Amino acid sequence: MPHRRSAFFISDRTGITAESLGNTLLTQFDTLEFKRETIPFVDTVEKAQEVAARIMNSADSDQHRPLVFSSIVNPEVRAAIKVDGALCIDFFEAFIGQIEGELVQRASLTVGRAHGMINEEKYDSRIEAVNFSLTHDDGVKLKDLDEADVILVGVSRSGKTPTCLYLALQYGIRAANYPLTPEDLDSPTLPKMLLPFRHKLFGLTIDPVRLHNIRTERRPDSKYASMDNCRFEVNEAESMFRQHGVAFISTTHKSIEEIATNILHKANLKRRF
Amino acid sequence: MPHRRSAFFISDRTGITAESLGNTLLTQFDTLEFKRETIPFVDTVEKAQEVAARIMNSADSDQHRPLVFSSIVNPEVRAAIKVDGALCIDFFEAFIGQIEGELVQRASLTVGRAHGMINEEKYDSRIEAVNFSLTHDDGVKLKDLDEADVILVGVSRSGKTPTCLYLALQYGIRAANYPLTPEDLDSPTLPKMLLPFRHKLFGLTIDPVRLHNIRTERRPDSKYASMDNCRFEVNEAESMFRQHGVAFISTTHKSIEEIATNILHKANLKRRF
Repeated sequence: MPHRRSAFFISDRTGITAESLGNTLLTQFDTLEFKRETIPFVDTVEKAQEVAARIMNSADSDQHRPLVFSSIVNPEVRAAIKVDGALCIDFFEAFIGQIEGELVQRASLTVGRAHGMINEEKYDSRIEAVNFSLTHDDGVKLKDLDEADVILVGVSRSGKTPTCLYLALQYGIRAANYPLTPEDLDSPTLPKMLLPFRHKLFGLTIDPVRLHNIRTERRPDSKYASMDNCRFEVNEAESMFRQHGVAFISTTHKSIEEIATNILHKANLKRRF
Repeated sequence: MPHRRSAFFISDRTGITAESLGNTLLTQFDTLEFKRETIPFVDTVEKAQEVAARIMNSADSDQHRPLVFSSIVNPEVRAAIKVDGALCIDFFEAFIGQIEGELVQRASLTVGRAHGMINEEKYDSRIEAVNFSLTHDDGVKLKDLDEADVILVGVSRSGKTPTCLYLALQYGIRAANYPLTPEDLDSPTLPKMLLPFRHKLFGLTIDPVRLHNIRTERRPDSKYASMDNCRFEVNEAESMFRQHGVAFISTTHKSIEEIATNILHKANLKRRF
Protein backbone atom coordinates (compact mmCIF):
# COMPACT_ATOMS: atom_id res chain seq x y z
CA MET A 1 0.00 0.00 0.00
CA PRO A 2 1.49 3.36 -0.96
CA HIS A 3 2.11 5.92 1.73
CA ARG A 4 -0.80 8.21 0.93
CA ARG A 5 -1.86 10.72 3.54
CA SER A 6 -4.53 13.35 3.72
CA ALA A 7 -3.46 16.95 4.16
CA PHE A 8 -6.06 19.49 5.22
CA PHE A 9 -5.75 23.25 4.93
CA ILE A 10 -8.32 24.88 7.17
CA SER A 11 -9.10 28.51 7.79
CA ASP A 12 -11.70 30.85 9.23
CA ARG A 13 -11.31 32.90 6.05
CA THR A 14 -10.30 31.93 2.49
CA GLY A 15 -7.65 29.34 3.35
CA ILE A 16 -5.22 30.85 0.87
CA THR A 17 -2.53 31.53 3.49
CA ALA A 18 -2.86 28.14 5.20
CA GLU A 19 -2.74 26.42 1.84
CA SER A 20 0.24 28.35 0.61
CA LEU A 21 2.43 27.76 3.69
CA GLY A 22 1.18 24.18 4.05
CA ASN A 23 2.08 23.42 0.45
CA THR A 24 5.48 25.03 0.85
CA LEU A 25 6.16 22.59 3.66
CA LEU A 26 4.72 19.54 1.90
CA THR A 27 6.65 20.04 -1.33
CA GLN A 28 9.77 19.29 0.71
CA PHE A 29 8.60 15.67 0.78
CA ASP A 30 8.16 15.12 -2.91
CA THR A 31 8.46 11.35 -2.86
CA LEU A 32 5.23 11.17 -0.87
CA GLU A 33 1.75 11.66 -2.18
CA PHE A 34 -0.85 13.73 -0.38
CA LYS A 35 -4.59 14.03 -0.82
CA ARG A 36 -5.02 17.75 -0.32
CA GLU A 37 -8.21 19.43 0.74
CA THR A 38 -8.87 23.05 1.60
CA ILE A 39 -11.76 23.91 3.88
CA PRO A 40 -12.35 27.67 4.13
CA PHE A 41 -14.68 29.79 6.27
CA VAL A 42 -14.58 27.52 9.32
CA ASP A 43 -15.65 30.20 11.78
CA THR A 44 -17.94 28.50 14.28
CA VAL A 45 -17.43 25.67 16.76
CA GLU A 46 -20.16 23.68 14.94
CA LYS A 47 -18.39 23.89 11.59
CA ALA A 48 -15.12 23.01 13.30
CA GLN A 49 -16.68 19.91 14.82
CA GLU A 50 -17.86 18.74 11.39
CA VAL A 51 -14.36 19.29 10.06
CA ALA A 52 -12.88 17.30 12.95
CA ALA A 53 -15.18 14.40 12.06
CA ARG A 54 -13.95 14.51 8.46
CA ILE A 55 -10.35 14.47 9.62
CA MET A 56 -10.99 11.43 11.77
CA ASN A 57 -12.70 9.66 8.88
CA SER A 58 -9.65 10.25 6.72
CA ALA A 59 -7.40 8.91 9.42
CA ASP A 60 -9.46 5.72 9.47
CA SER A 61 -9.61 5.19 5.73
CA ASP A 62 -5.98 6.24 5.03
CA GLN A 63 -4.53 4.17 7.85
CA HIS A 64 -2.19 7.13 8.31
CA ARG A 65 -2.43 10.19 10.50
CA PRO A 66 -3.60 13.18 8.44
CA LEU A 67 -1.67 16.45 8.45
CA VAL A 68 -3.80 19.42 9.40
CA PHE A 69 -2.59 22.96 8.68
CA SER A 70 -4.89 25.63 9.97
CA SER A 71 -5.02 29.34 10.51
CA ILE A 72 -7.82 30.13 12.91
CA VAL A 73 -8.05 33.18 15.13
CA ASN A 74 -10.75 32.10 17.61
CA PRO A 75 -9.29 29.77 20.29
CA GLU A 76 -12.50 27.75 20.73
CA VAL A 77 -12.95 27.11 17.03
CA ARG A 78 -9.26 26.19 16.82
CA ALA A 79 -9.57 23.78 19.72
CA ALA A 80 -12.56 22.06 18.11
CA ILE A 81 -10.66 20.93 15.03
CA LYS A 82 -7.74 19.50 17.00
CA VAL A 83 -8.03 15.75 16.98
CA ASP A 84 -5.66 13.30 18.55
CA GLY A 85 -5.36 11.11 15.48
CA ALA A 86 -3.75 13.82 13.32
CA LEU A 87 -0.73 16.12 13.30
CA CYS A 88 -2.39 19.51 13.84
CA ILE A 89 -0.44 22.70 13.25
CA ASP A 90 -2.10 26.07 13.60
CA PHE A 91 -0.08 28.86 12.01
CA PHE A 92 -1.85 31.56 13.91
CA GLU A 93 -1.56 29.96 17.34
CA ALA A 94 2.08 29.06 16.81
CA PHE A 95 3.26 32.66 16.76
CA ILE A 96 0.65 34.93 18.22
CA GLY A 97 1.89 34.48 21.80
CA GLN A 98 5.47 35.34 20.87
CA ILE A 99 4.33 38.49 19.07
CA GLU A 100 2.06 39.51 21.93
CA GLY A 101 5.07 39.21 24.23
CA GLU A 102 7.27 41.28 21.96
CA LEU A 103 4.68 44.01 21.46
CA VAL A 104 3.46 43.89 25.07
CA GLN A 105 -0.12 43.91 23.79
CA ARG A 106 -2.85 41.32 23.41
CA ALA A 107 -4.07 40.25 19.99
CA SER A 108 -7.50 41.68 19.21
CA LEU A 109 -8.68 38.21 18.06
CA THR A 110 -10.84 39.74 15.36
CA VAL A 111 -11.49 37.37 12.49
CA GLY A 112 -11.84 38.93 9.08
CA ARG A 113 -9.48 41.70 9.86
CA ALA A 114 -6.83 39.04 9.62
CA HIS A 115 -7.14 37.81 6.06
CA GLY A 116 -9.62 39.25 3.65
CA MET A 117 -10.77 42.28 5.53
CA ILE A 118 -13.48 44.64 4.41
CA ASN A 119 -11.52 47.33 2.73
CA GLU A 120 -13.30 49.25 0.05
CA GLU A 121 -10.29 51.34 -0.74
CA LYS A 122 -8.16 48.30 -1.46
CA TYR A 123 -10.99 46.72 -3.44
CA ASP A 124 -11.40 49.82 -5.53
CA SER A 125 -7.74 50.25 -6.28
CA ARG A 126 -7.47 46.60 -7.36
CA ILE A 127 -10.46 46.95 -9.63
CA GLU A 128 -9.04 50.11 -11.11
CA ALA A 129 -5.73 48.41 -11.73
CA VAL A 130 -7.43 45.39 -13.32
CA ASN A 131 -9.52 47.64 -15.55
CA PHE A 132 -6.41 49.56 -16.45
CA SER A 133 -4.64 46.36 -17.49
CA LEU A 134 -7.62 45.20 -19.50
CA THR A 135 -7.96 48.41 -21.45
CA HIS A 136 -4.21 48.59 -22.05
CA ASP A 137 -3.72 44.99 -22.96
CA ASP A 138 -1.75 44.30 -26.09
CA GLY A 139 -1.17 47.95 -26.75
CA VAL A 140 -4.82 48.54 -27.55
CA LYS A 141 -4.97 52.03 -26.13
CA LEU A 142 -1.73 53.88 -25.93
CA LYS A 143 -2.97 57.42 -25.59
CA ASP A 144 -2.95 57.48 -21.81
CA LEU A 145 0.10 55.36 -21.10
CA ASP A 146 1.36 58.13 -18.87
CA GLU A 147 -0.93 56.76 -16.16
CA ALA A 148 0.82 53.39 -16.26
CA ASP A 149 3.15 52.43 -13.43
CA VAL A 150 5.00 50.09 -15.76
CA ILE A 151 4.75 48.99 -19.40
CA LEU A 152 5.73 45.40 -20.13
CA VAL A 153 7.33 44.88 -23.51
CA GLY A 154 7.97 41.56 -25.21
CA VAL A 155 7.19 39.33 -28.16
CA SER A 156 3.79 37.69 -28.48
CA ARG A 157 3.25 34.93 -25.84
CA SER A 158 6.12 35.93 -23.59
CA GLY A 159 3.81 36.22 -20.57
CA LYS A 160 2.85 39.90 -20.59
CA THR A 161 -0.92 39.70 -20.09
CA PRO A 162 -1.11 37.34 -17.08
CA THR A 163 1.76 39.21 -15.45
CA CYS A 164 -0.05 42.53 -15.86
CA LEU A 165 -3.19 41.07 -14.33
CA TYR A 166 -1.29 39.53 -11.46
CA LEU A 167 0.47 42.85 -10.75
CA ALA A 168 -2.96 44.50 -10.70
CA LEU A 169 -4.66 41.96 -8.44
CA GLN A 170 -1.80 41.33 -6.03
CA TYR A 171 -0.27 44.78 -5.77
CA GLY A 172 -2.74 47.24 -7.33
CA ILE A 173 -0.13 48.18 -9.92
CA ARG A 174 -1.26 49.67 -13.21
CA ALA A 175 0.60 47.65 -15.78
CA ALA A 176 0.12 48.17 -19.50
CA ASN A 177 1.73 45.99 -22.10
CA TYR A 178 3.09 46.40 -25.57
CA PRO A 179 3.62 43.42 -27.88
CA LEU A 180 6.70 43.68 -30.08
CA THR A 181 5.51 42.77 -33.56
CA PRO A 182 7.78 41.41 -36.32
CA GLU A 183 7.67 44.91 -37.85
CA ASP A 184 8.87 46.46 -34.60
CA LEU A 185 11.69 43.95 -34.54
CA ASP A 186 12.93 44.73 -38.04
CA SER A 187 14.67 47.78 -36.67
CA PRO A 188 16.74 47.99 -33.47
CA THR A 189 15.11 51.26 -32.44
CA LEU A 190 12.32 51.33 -29.88
CA PRO A 191 8.81 51.50 -31.33
CA LYS A 192 8.03 55.19 -31.70
CA MET A 193 5.03 55.28 -29.40
CA LEU A 194 7.12 53.88 -26.55
CA LEU A 195 9.82 56.55 -26.73
CA PRO A 196 8.16 59.01 -24.34
CA PHE A 197 7.72 56.20 -21.79
CA ARG A 198 11.19 54.71 -21.96
CA HIS A 199 11.74 54.95 -18.20
CA LYS A 200 8.62 52.85 -17.58
CA LEU A 201 9.51 49.96 -19.86
CA PHE A 202 10.30 46.52 -18.53
CA GLY A 203 11.17 43.70 -20.92
CA LEU A 204 10.09 40.07 -20.86
CA THR A 205 12.02 37.45 -22.76
CA ILE A 206 11.59 33.72 -23.11
CA ASP A 207 13.55 30.73 -24.29
CA PRO A 208 12.90 30.32 -28.05
CA VAL A 209 12.19 26.58 -27.73
CA ARG A 210 9.57 27.19 -25.07
CA LEU A 211 8.10 30.01 -27.16
CA HIS A 212 7.95 27.70 -30.16
CA ASN A 213 6.04 25.13 -28.08
CA ILE A 214 3.59 27.67 -26.72
CA ARG A 215 2.91 29.19 -30.13
CA THR A 216 2.59 25.77 -31.77
CA GLU A 217 -0.31 25.01 -29.43
CA ARG A 218 -2.10 28.05 -30.81
CA ARG A 219 -1.12 28.02 -34.47
CA PRO A 220 0.57 24.78 -35.48
CA ASP A 221 2.84 24.85 -38.55
CA SER A 222 2.63 28.62 -38.89
CA LYS A 223 5.50 30.95 -39.60
CA TYR A 224 4.50 32.63 -36.32
CA ALA A 225 5.26 29.43 -34.39
CA SER A 226 8.27 28.24 -36.38
CA MET A 227 11.52 27.66 -34.51
CA ASP A 228 13.42 30.01 -36.82
CA ASN A 229 10.98 32.83 -36.35
CA CYS A 230 10.83 32.38 -32.56
CA ARG A 231 14.62 32.46 -32.40
CA PHE A 232 14.71 35.57 -34.58
CA GLU A 233 12.08 37.44 -32.57
CA VAL A 234 13.64 36.64 -29.20
CA ASN A 235 17.14 37.64 -30.38
CA GLU A 236 15.95 40.91 -31.81
CA ALA A 237 13.87 41.73 -28.75
CA GLU A 238 16.80 41.08 -26.42
CA SER A 239 19.13 43.24 -28.55
CA MET A 240 16.58 46.01 -28.47
CA PHE A 241 16.37 45.82 -24.65
CA ARG A 242 20.16 45.84 -24.31
CA GLN A 243 20.68 48.67 -26.74
CA HIS A 244 18.17 50.92 -25.00
CA GLY A 245 19.00 49.96 -21.45
CA VAL A 246 15.60 48.37 -20.83
CA ALA A 247 15.78 45.98 -17.86
CA PHE A 248 14.40 42.56 -18.72
CA ILE A 249 13.92 39.10 -17.28
CA SER A 250 13.27 35.68 -18.71
CA THR A 251 9.89 34.16 -17.98
CA THR A 252 10.93 30.65 -19.06
CA HIS A 253 11.38 28.94 -15.72
CA LYS A 254 9.25 31.23 -13.60
CA SER A 255 5.72 31.13 -12.27
CA ILE A 256 3.52 34.18 -12.79
CA GLU A 257 4.06 35.14 -9.12
CA GLU A 258 7.81 35.04 -9.62
CA ILE A 259 7.73 37.12 -12.80
CA ALA A 260 5.49 39.71 -11.15
CA THR A 261 7.50 39.89 -7.92
CA ASN A 262 10.76 40.18 -9.84
CA ILE A 263 9.41 43.12 -11.82
CA LEU A 264 7.98 44.77 -8.72
CA HIS A 265 11.39 44.76 -7.07
CA LYS A 266 13.68 45.29 -10.05
CA ALA A 267 11.63 48.18 -11.40
CA ASN A 268 11.18 49.53 -7.89
CA LEU A 269 7.42 49.87 -8.33
CA LYS A 270 5.30 51.32 -5.59
CA ARG A 271 2.48 49.07 -4.45
CA ARG A 272 -0.91 50.71 -4.20
CA PHE A 273 -1.76 48.74 -1.04
CA MET B 1 7.29 59.23 20.01
CA PRO B 2 4.76 56.83 18.49
CA HIS B 3 5.34 53.14 18.76
CA ARG B 4 6.40 52.53 15.18
CA ARG B 5 8.21 49.32 14.38
CA SER B 6 9.67 47.85 11.26
CA ALA B 7 8.25 44.55 10.04
CA PHE B 8 10.24 42.60 7.45
CA PHE B 9 8.89 39.80 5.29
CA ILE B 10 11.81 37.85 3.86
CA SER B 11 11.87 34.88 1.55
CA ASP B 12 14.12 32.86 -0.73
CA ARG B 13 11.33 33.05 -3.31
CA THR B 14 8.59 35.62 -3.92
CA GLY B 15 7.80 36.48 -0.30
CA ILE B 16 4.07 36.19 -0.93
CA THR B 17 3.58 33.47 1.71
CA ALA B 18 5.73 35.15 4.35
CA GLU B 19 3.95 38.44 3.73
CA SER B 20 0.51 36.93 3.85
CA LEU B 21 0.97 35.06 7.14
CA GLY B 22 3.00 37.90 8.63
CA ASN B 23 0.26 40.39 7.80
CA THR B 24 -2.40 38.08 9.20
CA LEU B 25 -0.54 38.14 12.50
CA LEU B 26 0.16 41.88 12.49
CA THR B 27 -3.43 42.92 11.76
CA GLN B 28 -4.26 41.55 15.20
CA PHE B 29 -2.46 44.59 16.62
CA ASP B 30 -4.32 47.28 14.79
CA THR B 31 -3.60 50.08 17.22
CA LEU B 32 0.08 49.85 16.33
CA GLU B 33 1.72 51.10 13.20
CA PHE B 34 4.27 49.08 11.26
CA LYS B 35 6.69 50.03 8.50
CA ARG B 36 6.39 46.96 6.30
CA GLU B 37 9.02 45.82 3.85
CA THR B 38 9.14 42.67 1.74
CA ILE B 39 12.51 41.36 0.59
CA PRO B 40 12.17 38.45 -1.88
CA PHE B 41 14.72 36.13 -3.47
CA VAL B 42 17.14 36.08 -0.53
CA ASP B 43 18.81 32.83 -1.52
CA THR B 44 22.49 33.24 -0.68
CA VAL B 45 24.35 33.86 2.56
CA GLU B 46 25.72 37.12 1.08
CA LYS B 47 22.26 38.49 0.35
CA ALA B 48 21.13 37.37 3.80
CA GLN B 49 24.00 39.26 5.43
CA GLU B 50 22.98 42.45 3.62
CA VAL B 51 19.43 41.96 4.81
CA ALA B 52 20.66 41.42 8.38
CA ALA B 53 22.49 44.74 8.18
CA ARG B 54 19.31 46.49 7.06
CA ILE B 55 17.38 44.95 9.93
CA MET B 56 19.97 46.19 12.43
CA ASN B 57 19.83 49.67 10.91
CA SER B 58 16.07 49.74 11.37
CA ALA B 59 16.44 48.64 14.97
CA ASP B 60 18.78 51.59 15.56
CA SER B 61 16.65 54.21 13.87
CA ASP B 62 13.28 52.95 15.20
CA GLN B 63 14.48 52.52 18.77
CA HIS B 64 12.34 49.39 18.72
CA ARG B 65 13.15 45.79 17.89
CA PRO B 66 11.99 44.99 14.34
CA LEU B 67 9.77 41.99 13.65
CA VAL B 68 11.21 39.65 11.04
CA PHE B 69 8.99 37.06 9.37
CA SER B 70 10.86 34.79 7.02
CA SER B 71 10.37 31.64 5.01
CA ILE B 72 13.77 30.31 4.02
CA VAL B 73 14.59 26.71 3.22
CA ASN B 74 18.39 26.75 3.41
CA PRO B 75 19.57 26.64 7.06
CA GLU B 76 22.71 28.72 6.45
CA VAL B 77 20.85 31.48 4.65
CA ARG B 78 18.25 31.41 7.41
CA ALA B 79 20.88 31.64 10.12
CA ALA B 80 22.50 34.65 8.43
CA ILE B 81 19.42 36.85 8.72
CA LYS B 82 18.86 36.11 12.39
CA VAL B 83 19.98 39.07 14.40
CA ASP B 84 19.84 39.46 18.15
CA GLY B 85 18.23 42.87 18.05
CA ALA B 86 15.01 41.66 16.36
CA LEU B 87 12.20 39.17 16.90
CA CYS B 88 12.93 36.64 14.14
CA ILE B 89 10.33 34.05 13.20
CA ASP B 90 10.96 31.65 10.34
CA PHE B 91 7.78 29.94 9.17
CA PHE B 92 9.63 27.15 7.43
CA GLU B 93 11.95 26.31 10.30
CA ALA B 94 9.16 26.43 12.85
CA PHE B 95 7.36 23.40 11.44
CA ILE B 96 9.65 21.42 9.22
CA GLY B 97 11.11 19.35 12.09
CA GLN B 98 7.67 18.37 13.35
CA ILE B 99 6.60 17.27 9.89
CA GLU B 100 9.84 15.35 9.31
CA GLY B 101 9.12 13.51 12.53
CA GLU B 102 5.55 12.71 11.55
CA LEU B 103 6.49 11.51 8.06
CA VAL B 104 9.70 9.80 9.22
CA GLN B 105 11.53 11.41 6.32
CA ARG B 106 13.96 14.29 5.92
CA ALA B 107 12.96 17.44 4.02
CA SER B 108 14.65 17.62 0.63
CA LEU B 109 15.64 21.26 1.33
CA THR B 110 15.16 22.20 -2.28
CA VAL B 111 14.42 25.87 -2.77
CA GLY B 112 12.18 26.75 -5.66
CA ARG B 113 10.28 23.57 -5.41
CA ALA B 114 8.85 25.12 -2.30
CA HIS B 115 7.11 28.21 -3.63
CA GLY B 116 7.10 29.11 -7.25
CA MET B 117 8.36 25.92 -8.79
CA ILE B 118 9.06 25.39 -12.43
CA ASN B 119 5.89 23.82 -13.61
CA GLU B 120 5.04 24.34 -17.23
CA GLU B 121 1.80 22.46 -16.97
CA LYS B 122 0.52 24.70 -14.22
CA TYR B 123 1.76 27.78 -16.07
CA ASP B 124 -0.01 26.71 -19.22
CA SER B 125 -3.30 25.95 -17.54
CA ARG B 126 -3.27 29.31 -15.80
CA ILE B 127 -2.58 31.12 -19.04
CA GLU B 128 -5.33 29.20 -20.77
CA ALA B 129 -7.76 30.06 -18.00
CA VAL B 130 -6.75 33.74 -18.12
CA ASN B 131 -7.17 33.81 -21.88
CA PHE B 132 -10.50 32.10 -21.52
CA SER B 133 -11.68 34.75 -19.07
CA LEU B 134 -10.46 37.55 -21.29
CA THR B 135 -12.23 36.28 -24.39
CA HIS B 136 -15.41 35.58 -22.44
CA ASP B 137 -15.46 38.78 -20.50
CA ASP B 138 -18.72 40.68 -20.45
CA GLY B 139 -20.47 38.09 -22.56
CA VAL B 140 -18.46 39.00 -25.64
CA LYS B 141 -18.29 35.49 -27.05
CA LEU B 142 -21.01 33.14 -25.98
CA LYS B 143 -20.75 30.47 -28.62
CA ASP B 144 -18.36 28.26 -26.73
CA LEU B 145 -19.65 28.74 -23.21
CA ASP B 146 -19.86 24.98 -22.90
CA GLU B 147 -16.11 25.02 -22.16
CA ALA B 148 -16.65 27.27 -19.13
CA ASP B 149 -16.34 25.80 -15.64
CA VAL B 150 -18.60 28.53 -14.32
CA ILE B 151 -20.45 31.55 -15.69
CA LEU B 152 -20.75 34.52 -13.36
CA VAL B 153 -23.93 36.51 -13.78
CA GLY B 154 -24.68 39.91 -12.30
CA VAL B 155 -25.41 43.55 -12.99
CA SER B 156 -22.70 45.83 -14.33
CA ARG B 157 -19.99 46.57 -11.70
CA SER B 158 -20.95 43.79 -9.32
CA GLY B 159 -17.40 42.35 -9.40
CA LYS B 160 -17.60 39.75 -12.17
CA THR B 161 -14.45 40.53 -14.16
CA PRO B 162 -11.85 40.65 -11.36
CA THR B 163 -13.39 37.55 -9.81
CA CYS B 164 -13.11 35.65 -13.10
CA LEU B 165 -9.47 36.66 -13.44
CA TYR B 166 -8.69 35.71 -9.87
CA LEU B 167 -10.36 32.30 -10.33
CA ALA B 168 -8.20 31.80 -13.43
CA LEU B 169 -4.91 32.87 -11.86
CA GLN B 170 -5.33 31.26 -8.47
CA TYR B 171 -7.16 28.06 -9.39
CA GLY B 172 -6.91 27.67 -13.17
CA ILE B 173 -10.69 27.84 -13.41
CA ARG B 174 -12.30 28.88 -16.68
CA ALA B 175 -14.78 31.50 -15.65
CA ALA B 176 -16.89 33.38 -18.15
CA ASN B 177 -19.19 36.19 -17.22
CA TYR B 178 -22.46 37.58 -18.40
CA PRO B 179 -23.60 41.10 -17.49
CA LEU B 180 -27.32 41.45 -16.83
CA THR B 181 -28.41 44.49 -18.82
CA PRO B 182 -31.49 46.58 -18.02
CA GLU B 183 -33.23 44.80 -20.94
CA ASP B 184 -32.45 41.40 -19.42
CA LEU B 185 -33.91 42.63 -16.15
CA ASP B 186 -37.21 43.78 -17.64
CA SER B 187 -38.35 40.18 -17.62
CA PRO B 188 -37.93 37.65 -14.81
CA THR B 189 -36.84 34.89 -17.22
CA LEU B 190 -33.20 34.04 -17.69
CA PRO B 191 -31.57 35.60 -20.74
CA LYS B 192 -32.13 33.17 -23.59
CA MET B 193 -28.49 32.46 -24.33
CA LEU B 194 -27.88 31.38 -20.74
CA LEU B 195 -30.65 28.77 -20.69
CA PRO B 196 -28.51 25.85 -21.94
CA PHE B 197 -25.91 26.65 -19.25
CA ARG B 198 -28.21 27.06 -16.30
CA HIS B 199 -26.31 24.53 -14.17
CA LYS B 200 -23.11 26.56 -14.58
CA LEU B 201 -24.50 29.92 -13.51
CA PHE B 202 -23.40 31.62 -10.32
CA GLY B 203 -24.86 34.99 -9.36
CA LEU B 204 -23.16 38.03 -7.87
CA THR B 205 -25.14 40.69 -6.11
CA ILE B 206 -24.13 43.88 -4.36
CA ASP B 207 -25.62 46.41 -1.98
CA PRO B 208 -27.40 49.07 -4.09
CA VAL B 209 -25.76 51.94 -2.18
CA ARG B 210 -22.29 50.56 -2.81
CA LEU B 211 -23.19 49.97 -6.46
CA HIS B 212 -24.42 53.56 -6.75
CA ASN B 213 -21.09 54.80 -5.35
CA ILE B 214 -19.03 52.62 -7.69
CA ARG B 215 -21.04 53.61 -10.76
CA THR B 216 -21.00 57.29 -9.81
CA GLU B 217 -17.20 57.22 -9.97
CA ARG B 218 -17.49 56.10 -13.59
CA ARG B 219 -20.50 58.01 -14.83
CA PRO B 220 -21.60 60.71 -12.40
CA ASP B 221 -25.21 61.89 -12.61
CA SER B 222 -26.21 59.22 -15.12
CA LYS B 223 -29.35 57.13 -15.04
CA TYR B 224 -26.95 54.16 -14.94
CA ALA B 225 -25.52 55.33 -11.61
CA SER B 226 -28.71 56.69 -10.05
CA MET B 227 -29.78 55.27 -6.71
CA ASP B 228 -33.21 54.34 -8.07
CA ASN B 229 -31.81 52.45 -11.01
CA CYS B 230 -29.21 50.63 -8.90
CA ARG B 231 -31.91 49.55 -6.48
CA PHE B 232 -34.12 48.40 -9.35
CA GLU B 233 -31.38 46.41 -11.08
CA VAL B 234 -30.20 44.67 -7.91
CA ASN B 235 -33.76 43.74 -6.90
CA GLU B 236 -34.59 42.34 -10.30
CA ALA B 237 -31.34 40.40 -10.52
CA GLU B 238 -31.87 38.84 -7.10
CA SER B 239 -35.45 37.85 -7.99
CA MET B 240 -34.19 36.26 -11.18
CA PHE B 241 -31.56 34.26 -9.24
CA ARG B 242 -34.15 33.11 -6.70
CA GLN B 243 -36.75 32.21 -9.27
CA HIS B 244 -34.37 30.06 -11.28
CA GLY B 245 -32.50 28.52 -8.37
CA VAL B 246 -29.21 30.23 -9.27
CA ALA B 247 -26.91 30.31 -6.23
CA PHE B 248 -25.60 33.80 -5.52
CA ILE B 249 -23.50 35.74 -3.06
CA SER B 250 -23.10 39.37 -2.20
CA THR B 251 -19.76 40.96 -3.06
CA THR B 252 -20.37 44.04 -0.91
CA HIS B 253 -18.18 43.29 2.09
CA LYS B 254 -15.81 40.80 0.50
CA SER B 255 -12.35 40.97 -0.97
CA ILE B 256 -11.79 39.45 -4.40
CA GLU B 257 -10.13 36.42 -2.74
CA GLU B 258 -13.19 35.89 -0.58
CA ILE B 259 -15.62 36.17 -3.48
CA ALA B 260 -13.57 33.73 -5.57
CA THR B 261 -13.06 31.22 -2.75
CA ASN B 262 -16.74 31.33 -1.86
CA ILE B 263 -17.71 30.54 -5.44
CA LEU B 264 -15.10 27.79 -5.71
CA HIS B 265 -16.57 26.01 -2.72
CA LYS B 266 -20.28 26.79 -3.12
CA ALA B 267 -20.31 25.81 -6.79
CA ASN B 268 -18.09 22.84 -6.05
CA LEU B 269 -15.68 23.75 -8.84
CA LYS B 270 -12.73 21.54 -9.62
CA ARG B 271 -9.39 23.32 -9.50
CA ARG B 272 -7.13 22.71 -12.46
CA PHE B 273 -4.03 22.57 -10.24
